[in-house]
Order: sequence, then C-alpha cells, then structure tokens
Amino acid sequence: MTIPQETLDVLARQRIEVPSWAYGNSGTRFKVFGTPGTPRTVQEKLADAAQVHKYTGLAPDVALHIPWDKVDDYAELRRFAEDLGVGLGTINSNTFQDDVYKFGSLTHSDPAIRQKAVDHHLECIEIMGATGSRDLKIWLADGSNYPGQVSIRARQDWLHESLSKIYAQLGAEQRMVLEYKFFEPAFYHTDVPDWGTSYVQVAALGEKAMVCLDTGHHAPGTNIEFIVAQLLRLGKLGSFDFNSRFYADDDLIVGAADPFQLFRILFEVVVGGGLDEDSPVAFMLDQCHNVEDKVPGQIRSVLNVQEMTARALLVDRDELRTAQEGGDVLGANSILMDAFYTDVRPALAEWRESRGLPADPMRAFAESGYLARIAEERVGGSQSSWGA
Amino acid sequence: MTIPQETLDVLARQRIEVPSWAYGNSGTRFKVFGTPGTPRTVQEKLADAAQVHKYTGLAPDVALHIPWDKVDDYAELRRFAEDLGVGLGTINSNTFQDDVYKFGSLTHSDPAIRQKAVDHHLECIEIMGATGSRDLKIWLADGSNYPGQVSIRARQDWLHESLSKIYAQLGAEQRMVLEYKFFEPAFYHTDVPDWGTSYVQVAALGEKAMVCLDTGHHAPGTNIEFIVAQLLRLGKLGSFDFNSRFYADDDLIVGAADPFQLFRILFEVVVGGGLDEDSPVAFMLDQCHNVEDKVPGQIRSVLNVQEMTARALLVDRDELRTAQEGGDVLGANSILMDAFYTDVRPALAEWRESRGLPADPMRAFAESGYLARIAEERVGGSQSSWGA
Amino acid sequence: MTIPQETLDVLARQRIEVPSWAYGNSGTRFKVFGTPGTPRTVQEKLADAAQVHKYTGLAPDVALHIPWDKVDDYAELRRFAEDLGVGLGTINSNTFQDDVYKFGSLTHSDPAIRQKAVDHHLECIEIMGATGSRDLKIWLADGSNYPGQVSIRARQDWLHESLSKIYAQLGAEQRMVLEYKFFEPAFYHTDVPDWGTSYVQVAALGEKAMVCLDTGHHAPGTNIEFIVAQLLRLGKLGSFDFNSRFYADDDLIVGAADPFQLFRILFEVVVGGGLDEDSPVAFMLDQCHNVEDKVPGQIRSVLNVQEMTARALLVDRDELRTAQEGGDVLGANSILMDAFYTDVRPALAEWRESRGLPADPMRAFAESGYLARIAEERVGGSQSSWGA
Amino acid sequence: MTIPQETLDVLARQRIEVPSWAYGNSGTRFKVFGTPGTPRTVQEKLADAAQVHKYTGLAPDVALHIPWDKVDDYAELRRFAEDLGVGLGTINSNTFQDDVYKFGSLTHSDPAIRQKAVDHHLECIEIMGATGSRDLKIWLADGSNYPGQVSIRARQDWLHESLSKIYAQLGAEQRMVLEYKFFEPAFYHTDVPDWGTSYVQVAALGEKAMVCLDTGHHAPGTNIEFIVAQLLRLGKLGSFDFNSRFYADDDLIVGAADPFQLFRILFEVVVGGGLDEDSPVAFMLDQCHNVEDKVPGQIRSVLNVQEMTARALLVDRDELRTAQEGGDVLGANSILMDAFYTDVRPALAEWRESRGLPADPMRAFAESGYLARIAEERVGGSQSSWGA
Repeated sequence: MTIPQETLDVLARQRIEVPSWAYGNSGTRFKVFGTPGTPRTVQEKLADAAQVHKYTGLAPDVALHIPWDKVDDYAELRRFAEDLGVGLGTINSNTFQDDVYKFGSLTHSDPAIRQKAVDHHLECIEIMGATGSRDLKIWLADGSNYPGQVSIRARQDWLHESLSKIYAQLGAEQRMVLEYKFFEPAFYHTDVPDWGTSYVQVAALGEKAMVCLDTGHHAPGTNIEFIVAQLLRLGKLGSFDFNSRFYADDDLIVGAADPFQLFRILFEVVVGGGLDEDSPVAFMLDQCHNVEDKVPGQIRSVLNVQEMTARALLVDRDELRTAQEGGDVLGANSILMDAFYTDVRPALAEWRESRGLPADPMRAFAESGYLARIAEERVGGSQSSWGA
Repeated sequence: MTIPQETLDVLARQRIEVPSWAYGNSGTRFKVFGTPGTPRTVQEKLADAAQVHKYTGLAPDVALHIPWDKVDDYAELRRFAEDLGVGLGTINSNTFQDDVYKFGSLTHSDPAIRQKAVDHHLECIEIMGATGSRDLKIWLADGSNYPGQVSIRARQDWLHESLSKIYAQLGAEQRMVLEYKFFEPAFYHTDVPDWGTSYVQVAALGEKAMVCLDTGHHAPGTNIEFIVAQLLRLGKLGSFDFNSRFYADDDLIVGAADPFQLFRILFEVVVGGGLDEDSPVAFMLDQCHNVEDKVPGQIRSVLNVQEMTARALLVDRDELRTAQEGGDVLGANSILMDAFYTDVRPALAEWRESRGLPADPMRAFAESGYLARIAEERVGGSQSSWGA
Repeated sequence: MTIPQETLDVLARQRIEVPSWAYGNSGTRFKVFGTPGTPRTVQEKLADAAQVHKYTGLAPDVALHIPWDKVDDYAELRRFAEDLGVGLGTINSNTFQDDVYKFGSLTHSDPAIRQKAVDHHLECIEIMGATGSRDLKIWLADGSNYPGQVSIRARQDWLHESLSKIYAQLGAEQRMVLEYKFFEPAFYHTDVPDWGTSYVQVAALGEKAMVCLDTGHHAPGTNIEFIVAQLLRLGKLGSFDFNSRFYADDDLIVGAADPFQLFRILFEVVVGGGLDEDSPVAFMLDQCHNVEDKVPGQIRSVLNVQEMTARALLVDRDELRTAQEGGDVLGANSILMDAFYTDVRPALAEWRESRGLPADPMRAFAESGYLARIAEERVGGSQSSWGA
Repeated sequence: MTIPQETLDVLARQRIEVPSWAYGNSGTRFKVFGTPGTPRTVQEKLADAAQVHKYTGLAPDVALHIPWDKVDDYAELRRFAEDLGVGLGTINSNTFQDDVYKFGSLTHSDPAIRQKAVDHHLECIEIMGATGSRDLKIWLADGSNYPGQVSIRARQDWLHESLSKIYAQLGAEQRMVLEYKFFEPAFYHTDVPDWGTSYVQVAALGEKAMVCLDTGHHAPGTNIEFIVAQLLRLGKLGSFDFNSRFYADDDLIVGAADPFQLFRILFEVVVGGGLDEDSPVAFMLDQCHNVEDKVPGQIRSVLNVQEMTARALLVDRDELRTAQEGGDVLGANSILMDAFYTDVRPALAEWRESRGLPADPMRAFAESGYLARIAEERVGGSQSSWGA
C-alpha cells in the first residue's frame, strides 16, 4: 500500500509528548520492581526520553512532574534538554503525596490546605515560565473512601474557588487542563470523576481552561470516542493522556489492550479536527512500565499512536458518509474495518527511512546497546519512582 | 423512634409520579409474560395507578406515554383521572417504535425523519396543554450498533437542532427534561449516553430544559449521588426516573437492588435542596414489573422511596459537618449509617394512620381483593404492553 | 504474505455452524424491526443459511431451535437441507417462552414443571436422531429478579437432577453442551451464570456433557481467553457461541466490538488443540442482526472467524516460548501483535479462489441479487422471529 | 425486638479472624499515609488486635503474614498472643515482594523459581506447626500485563504441580485455602482469577484443599452470594476474606459499600450451613484502613459482620419457602427485606452487656484512650506496612 500525501503531512507534524516519570520505576501497592539503569535524576530521565525521539522522531517534548522533577535552575534544565534534542513540555502538578492532602487538596474543607494546594500550582505556573511550557495539567487524587466522610457538594464549590485562583495567574499563552478519573486512589467518591465534571469546571473558568482526557480513566464499557467527539465539538478537548487498560487505570502501553478502541478514538480525533494544523489538542503518554523495559516501552507506545493515526487517516470519509446516509450498516462498518486491518507498517517504515529515521525503531534501539550502557553506568544513587 | 416534625413536613409534601406503562405488561426480548387483569386501556391503567395513591397518599400524578396512551379527548381523560383522585403528569414521547426510526429520530441523518420526530414532540406539547402537564420527558433510543454505522459527531449537532425546535414551542410554564442512558437498545454508541451530554444539550437551550436522571442508566460502578449533587449544584436536575438494577437497565423496583445507594442518592437530594418547597426536581418511577404483580409492585416502590427519604432526613447534618471537618472518617460515616440502619417503618406506619391512610399499605391493598376483581372483570381485549 | 501450508490445512477443515434464527427478525424489548425478505418458514431459513456456505465454504451446518423450527418430518427437512448443500447441526432447546416457565424450567421448585422441561429436552434428543445432530445445546433463562424470590441453593440441586435425566437419554454419539450466561433475562440471579457452574454441573454428569462458551455472556472485563484455555485443559470445552459485545449480551457480529479479543481467544484455541483434527470443540455463531442485513451479516461473521483464525495461526509459537521464558515482555507481546496486524485478507482471497470460491464473498453475494429476490418473492405470511 | 435464642447461640460461637497487617500502614500506589501509634513489630500488631477482641468478644484469632510477621521463635509469639487473650490463626504466604517473582511464583516458567515459591510455603507449614494454625492461605499475585507475555495454559499446569507439592506436606489437621482474585497486581491475565479456577485446582488436590472467597475479588456485577451457595454445596468453601468495594479490590470496611450485599452473602451462609457448629468455613477480615483509624476500623468491621449475621438469622425460612413455592415474588422478597431493615443494634447491645462486653464497643474503645497512648508510646522505629 501507499500512504497518501495528505496522511503523510499529518504524520509529519504529529507530536506525542512523553512523561519524565515513565522512565522511573512504577508499580502497584503490592510491589515496585526496580531495573538496572533506572534514572536517578531528572537529567537521566531526559536522556532516556531523548532516545525515544531519536529513534522515532515523534516525541520532541518531555512532560515534567513537580515536585518529582524539581531543580534549582529550570532554564538550565531547559538548555540541558535542548542539547539532547528535546524540549520541556507540560507541567504536572502533584497534590497527592503530602500528608496534609490525606483528605483532599484543592477540595479540602480546610481553607489553609486549599491555599497550600493553590500555591503549589502557582509555583508550577512560575516554573512554566522558565521551562517555556504551555500547559499546566491538574489531576487531583481528591476524593473519599466512605459515604459521609466528606461533603461531595461543598467540595465542588471549593474546587471551583481553588481553580479560579490558579486560572487567574495563567499567562496569556498558558493553559490549564483538568484531568478526570473514575476512581483511585479514592474508593468511594472522586471529586473530578468524569468528563462532565471536568467540563463544567473548566467552562466556568474561561477559554484557557480545557479538559484532559486520560484513556484509562473511565467506567467499564464507556464509549471513549464519543467523549472525544463531544469535547472536540464543544472546543474543550485540551489534551490526551494515552495508555490502555483491561480493568481499571492499568496504565498499560497505549493500544496494547484494545487496539481497535485506539483506532476509533483517533478516527474521532480526525473527524473533529484534532489533528488539524491549528488543533488545540495536545497528545501525551501517561503510562507505567511496571514489568517491561521503559525506553522501548515508550518507543512502542509512540509508534502505536502513529500507526493507528495512519490507519484512522486511511478511512475514506466521503464513501463513509454515503454508506451512513444510505443506511448501509455493514458497508459503513466495513469502510472503517478496512482501514483498521490495513497493514500500514511497511509503508511507515519506508517513510521513516526517507526522513533519516530507522525503519524499525524498536530494533534499532535494541541494537544500540543503550539499556546495557545505562545499566552499567547508573550505579548507586536512588532510582527514581513516584516518590521522587 | 420518633420522626421529627421537620421530616414529617417534607414527607407530607412528597409526591412520586407513577408511569401509566408500569401497569401494562413488560418483559425482555426473550418473553413478555401476561397476567390476568392487566389493563387494556389507558383508563384501566389510570384506575390501577389510582390504587397506589389511595393506599399510600404518595402518588397523586400519573405519567403518560404517547402514543401508548393516546386518546381522542385529553380533557376528558383528565376529568376521568381526577374522578379517580389522581392527575395527569409528565408526558413521555416515544420515537423508538416506528420503522422510520430504525437509525435514529431527533438525530437521524435524514432531515425529514428528524422533522417527523420533532413533530411528534410538538404533538406531545399540545397534549400537555390539554392534560395540564408541566413536563415533556424525552428519552431517545437513538444510537448505533456498529462503529462507523453513523456519524457520532454530526448527530450531536442534529440533536441540538431538533431539540431547539421543540424547546421553542414550550409554553411559559412548561419544561423539557432530557434523559440520558448508558446503552440499550443501541449497543455501540448512544446519542445521549451520560449526564454530561444531557447537560450540555439542555444548557444550550435555556432554563426550561433540564436533565432527567434515571437511576438505572449508568455505567457499572458509577457514583450516582455525585451526579445528583452536581446537577443540583448546576440547577439542572429536572427529574428522577427511579428504579434499580444489578446489571444493566434492569428496571427493578427502586431500592430493591441496593437500598444503601438509594439512601445516598436521597441524602444528596436533601443536601442539595431537592426536597425544598420550591424544588424543581420531579420524582417519578420508571420500572418494569416483569415477574411481580404490578400494582403492589408500584405501592412497594413509592413506599421504598418514602422510607428511604425518611432515613435520609434523619441524618444529623450539623454533627456530620463537624465530623467531616475534623477528619473523623469513621465518625462521619457512622452518622450516615446510623440513619440508614434506623428502622423508620413503625413510625411511618403510625404517621400514615394519623393521616387516614392504612398503616400497612401492602397488606391493605392485598386484603382489598382488587387484583382478583380486575382479573375477573378484565376479560378479552388486548392487554397493554410497550407495543400499545 | 504467504499463508503457510499448515495454516491452510487447518482453514480447510474449519466449520462454523450458523443458527437458523439469525435469518429471522430479532431486536430488543423496545422494538423488533422487520425486513423485506425475512424467512417465514424453516425451509426459507435454510435457504438463506445455504447462501452463507455457498459464498464462503465455511458454514456447512445449520443449527435448529426447537420449537421455533419444529416440523412434522425431520428426515424430510434433512433432505431438504442436503439438497441445498448444508446439513442440520446442533439442536437448541427452548424453555423460556412458555408461560409455565416464568419462574424457571429445569430449576423450577415445582417438580411437574421441571419434568415438563425435561420432557422438552427428551423430545429434542428424539429430533436429533432424525436430523443426525450430535449436540444438544441447553441454555436456560432460569433465574430470578429479586433477592429471596427463589432458593439459589435448592435450584442447583434441582438443576443437577433435571440434567441427569436428560443426560441419561443421550445416544452413544450424542453430546450435551450447557451454556452459561452472566445475566438476562433474569436480573438478580441466574442459575448457570458462569463457566464454573456450567463446569461443575457437566462434570457431575459424565464425559458426554461439556461446556458451551458464548463469547457475549461474561461480566465486564472478564478474560475470556483464560476460560478457553482452562476449559480446553480440563477437556470440557464443547462448543463456542460466537458473537461480540460492548456492554451486555449485545449479540453483535463476532469480531465487531473487539477484534483483538477474538484473536486472543482463537490463539488459545490453537494453543489448546481446539483446532486439531480430533478436537471436540464445535464452532457456532449466535448473533442478532437487529439493524443490519442478515445473510451478509452472517457471511461477514464467518469470514471474521476465518480471518482471525488465520492470524492466530501465524503466531510463531517457538519464538514466543523463547521470549516468554526469557522474560522479554515487549518481545513476546510483539510476536502476538505482529500476527494480529498482518493483513491476511489478500492471501485468503487468493486461497478462496483456488478452491472455487469467490475472492470477495461479501461482494459476490451482494452482486448475486439474492436479497432483492427474496424481498420480492417472500410476500405475505408471518416473518420468523424469536417468537416462532 | 428480641433476638431468638437460636440466633444468640450462633452469635455466641461466631469468630472473625483479624489480620495482623490491618494494624500496619496501607495505601495505594500513589501514597501510603502513616499514623502516630502504628505498630513497629508483630507484637505491637498483636496488642492492637487484642483490643478488637477485648471490646467485641468476636475476634479471638489473629492471622499472620509471612514474611511480614516473621520471628525467631513462634512458640514464644504464640504465648505472647495468648497472654493478650488471642490466638494465632491463618498463616498467609507472600510470593509477591521478592524480585524473583516479577513474572510469577508458583506459576513461573522457571522451575527453580517455582521451587523457591514452594519452599516458602513449606516454611509456612512449618510455622503453622509452631503457631498451632490450621489454615495456610495462598493468594498469588501471579499473572501478566500483556497478551503473549506468558503462557496462560502452561501456567495452570505448573500451578497444579506446585500446589501438589505443598499439599503433600500438610499435616493431618491442616488445610490449604486458595484465594482467587479478578485482577491486580496483574493487569491482563491472573492465574487464579475466579472461583472456577480455584475450585478446579483445589478439587484436584484433595479434601484438605478448599477455596477462599474474598468479597472484593470479583468482576463488576458478580452475584457473590451465588458463589457462596455453590461452594457450600460443593463442600469447598474454606474461608472468607471480608471487605467491601465500590470499584476494584478497594479493601474497604466490610459492609461499608453495600450492606445489603453483605446481608445476602450471610443469608446464603446460613442457608448452606456455613454457620453450623461443624462448619468448615473460616471467617476473616482482609482490609486496608488507608484513611481511617485502624483499631476502630477493625472493631467496626467485626461488628458489621455480627450485626448482619443477626439480621440474616432473622429471616423466617419456612415462611420464605412458602412464598417462593407459591410464586409470590413480592412476598418472598419482603421477608428478606424485613429482616434486613430490622434494627438489631439495640438487642445486640443488650446481649453484649449480658456477656460482660461494652454495649457500644466503638465508644468504649474511643473512651479508653488507647489510640492516644500508643501514639505517645510508639515513637521511633519503622512503622509496619506491606513492605514489612
């Protein structure tokens, strides 16, 4: 097959941000397994992230997590990243690891704790100035474990109040994206559990506030592409956190659990203009490589997004509209399936080579010996994980 | 225990609308079982519904379904109902049983079919004038079974366009409530699948359009009381369709599957002012008595709502706030649980008697011999069901 | 790509049974849509089913449903089918449409009703003699809607007793397969809700009793391929009912909702010997074409199974074992994904042609004009559906 | 109300084992919050556990987790516990925290790692001799995160082989209980995911091997009381791990999320003889008090089980059978609901006092000042958690 030029143009501008924390250790409440070579510093995380871009050309930006990636001099960190060929991307706030946040942060019943959480975000905005980041991503662990533990209703008002204070400090070119999540770490109620809540909260703030859709943060059976279509229609889809899941927020490699779902999501992105040149949608990974190697796990992930984007772009939308309007159920479905089942990998390999990239990034990276090298070099110190 | 006067005041004004179709036959795609005495006409449905009010004092209004309950003269039907001691309530539209709606109604890609569906709603509004109904309830079966079958995105726009035409015809005292549903009868995508969609659609129309929350229409694990709290906060909770479920939209008796969930829902109603005198929230049953007797099934249902309301009103909200703000997780939870575990039934029986109602409505109805009487009298004709 | 000879050998003996009821109308509790040309008789259903085999070479057997497909002379029906080029397959019993079965059939608390249900199965066994069918498939709608309605525990014993009576009448070459289902039409408890129950019931009977796995009958998130592997290991996987689902028992076209899941299921079939020459596993469709055309819906379905089988057979299992034993998570996964993403369709088209079949069965059938012909010819009479 | 003597007899012999690890810290992958006074040693855990028994009379045994509770001298630990008024109960093995178990333990493809895991269990059996424990509880984290990562099929055989080796070393009075879990920490496949798998594995071993049912380890919507009834019928319900959940394995306080479900479970226990004098069923808590106080959390939990047991015992089973056999759906259901809604707490308080226990154990414990005392005394050292 040949990939049409229009598709190649879209692919040429596709950027998938990678998260610095994907290179550190992660795990479950039962165990976090370490691996030789795991980064000890943010600089080592950036070095690993730069490998992903080097072999794929897809991941020019690295998202940071504050305070996990705190440094004294962000301008210097930015130069360090640029020397590696990558930029610093979205700033992720963190209000779930301080003891004071046990019962909430931006939604806490105590105004002093809410203010502390607001202040953390203001610090993040300051860092964004130094790193040149556009987006502040807010995901809240806020919620409760038992009915009656907190006031569901009051916390929505406190959330609005806290977000307003943060929003007020955003620069002209800066944005806030508010992520929703069905559950975890809270097991009864979560303060931002669904797209509806995220939407009404950001809509009340203004146009610089948008929704962040994490593909693993929905109730079982949720039609995610519907939400994508709806948020694009409302002009409020700010960013994606890509990953995949079989059960809960499993944070597996994007496309690993249900490749056809990823295809349908990306098709709605295409339909809704989310890959157009002026699209406000940021694409980002948010995954946990608990048992697999991290750098190749990230390479695999950005390739999955790219390959599935190519398939989604193959859909003949005129033909599709004709079948849809004619009530041709099987015909319309088969137009989608034909694109999905098309093996775009050989054509993408060729195109990659034409741009000076390896045909098979996974193999090229494996052959580079990078993992063995970092395993040897990175001895001592404390491996990065969610705690630091 | 003694029920506080304040609680009794709320109970005294509690009204739970019953649906005319609950008295006809219903079932699954596998089988609809008939029962002797099932109504053949809307008048017989009203007669059955009036029994519910007679024994409980809780159900003064009966919702109609158009065209199932179509008559030539609605003013006459209204008088007929009033003679039975009940009024005519919400008008439910139906756009899922005509062959032309196979691929959608208000969201259909064909403008002529959309207009036909709009016209059906305009007819409903006309009927509302004659019946004195305030609310037009719209639940759409619209959706698709296969990816690609229809344009998810375009249909949202068509939905807005159709709803706008209907909204424009609402009288000054009339309202529209838009019901959402997770899935069924569509098995891939549903056009109004969640509260977020219903909210954004009604918010775009104006203040006479509100959300209808059916307690059986959510994804597994959804925290429904959160949605109740959110919609009340947004001023957009127009009505409840009560029922309960273990799996999908099982349409079981409200409170039967998870009584504690019903308690939590009603507690958020209390917190959010949904039982205040000027509350815009309408309470209604929407159930299917597939295997149990229908009139006692309805009596059981309105009693369940009443009993659980009484429990929810027992919560000491001042004490609760203190425990919440003190981070006393177990204490706060136990305040809720104490109310839930309190047996309000004897006190409600006494109160009922003080108002000239039977202490035990279930028993009083059973002893009335009504079911035997209608089984004997209603011979011949065609028993009512979803088809008519 | 070239499909290896070993794979072609497996494909050459692949048989996927089609159900007679797929050609009649089906729908939801809300509406059953009719279509011009829908069969009015079992003979017309067989004629439609024969089209599937004619264009794909994959579906030489047609399953019957008793009493929907009752005739006076089954030997004559068998000859009728053979003249059409197909045989009569699995006999499906039906104990969910008689009024006496409202509260159960083989599990009913009344011994007389249990015996009536047993007798129905004995009649089915008699029919099997005349049709030459090997398998009696039992799916029970038995269950309850409300806690307390029936005795969960007693009904397991009654079920065992009833099944024993049926089992005792099986001929030497006949088998019984017991299907389980998570829920529907019962909404609280189901008497055979999971593979464990089906397994312990058939294990208590003997080696002619096996489990039937319907791919749409599991709780959300269930790993179906695990169950496939387990039942094959236990020697108790008797048959598949293929279809797909997004939510409940949606009965969509197999492979339509989650093609990768179908791939994983078929891969475990391959691993467990389920496609070996002497395999006891019967493959069958059980679907509802509510909104799409039925004959092409069935053609699409058997092709989906064939294509996915081809992909599953492509997995290099030696290489896979090496990666698995080396703890190479990404490597092992990519071996599976490579097979899944391989476009086998062109090679299958060629192979099909080499066997005198159309390269594109969907197009060939469409061009045959069959649907238009039956729409014209089949006028009057009563279209078949689940009721008859 | 008065609680019947028969019920009191059952309650008098009710024992609910508490887990040593409930008194240490626990949390999610995001954060483990510490609390002043958290035990640093197994002795301190036992001291806390003894409080639960002191105030409730319900929890005479404490389960241990090896290696978390490893000591040099188990006989001494046993005496230590006995001095506190409690005994040592079930021994829980742990094969999920060693690095070698990253890809499995009893199911690992490497025979040396399987043997290491077997050896750990043999060590547990040895400890059981010294502690006087009857039960070895095996819960395996074994599974995989990605399709293809491991051989689902081979691991079942390896599991059987490993369990056989352990089973062979059980003493005459010792038992093994095998716990199943839907998912977590593995996110694609789990080696013992459902009761069916646990059942077929223990059935293959012999009568000393039974199933452990953890109430939080099922797919959404699973009817747990059905599984209870089935396992009791099969004589294979060895023990319960009690807790509750809204979403996944939330490990909340038993009865907190769905009290009616707990009622239904205990009713099936009653029906199936699980509370009879010679019942083989062990009752145990397995919870995580992430945000609430741990000792009162445990007191609340055992009281919840007791109160719900009392309600389940109130059901008039003769009356129920009559209603069931008469097809009286609403009547049968209401017999269950009447028992559920009966407020047994005052009668239980009285009965407790009659046995020299505090009427209100929660208040009595709170007033004892125990939490403040341990917060003051237990300074320094390392607080216990899942890591130790």
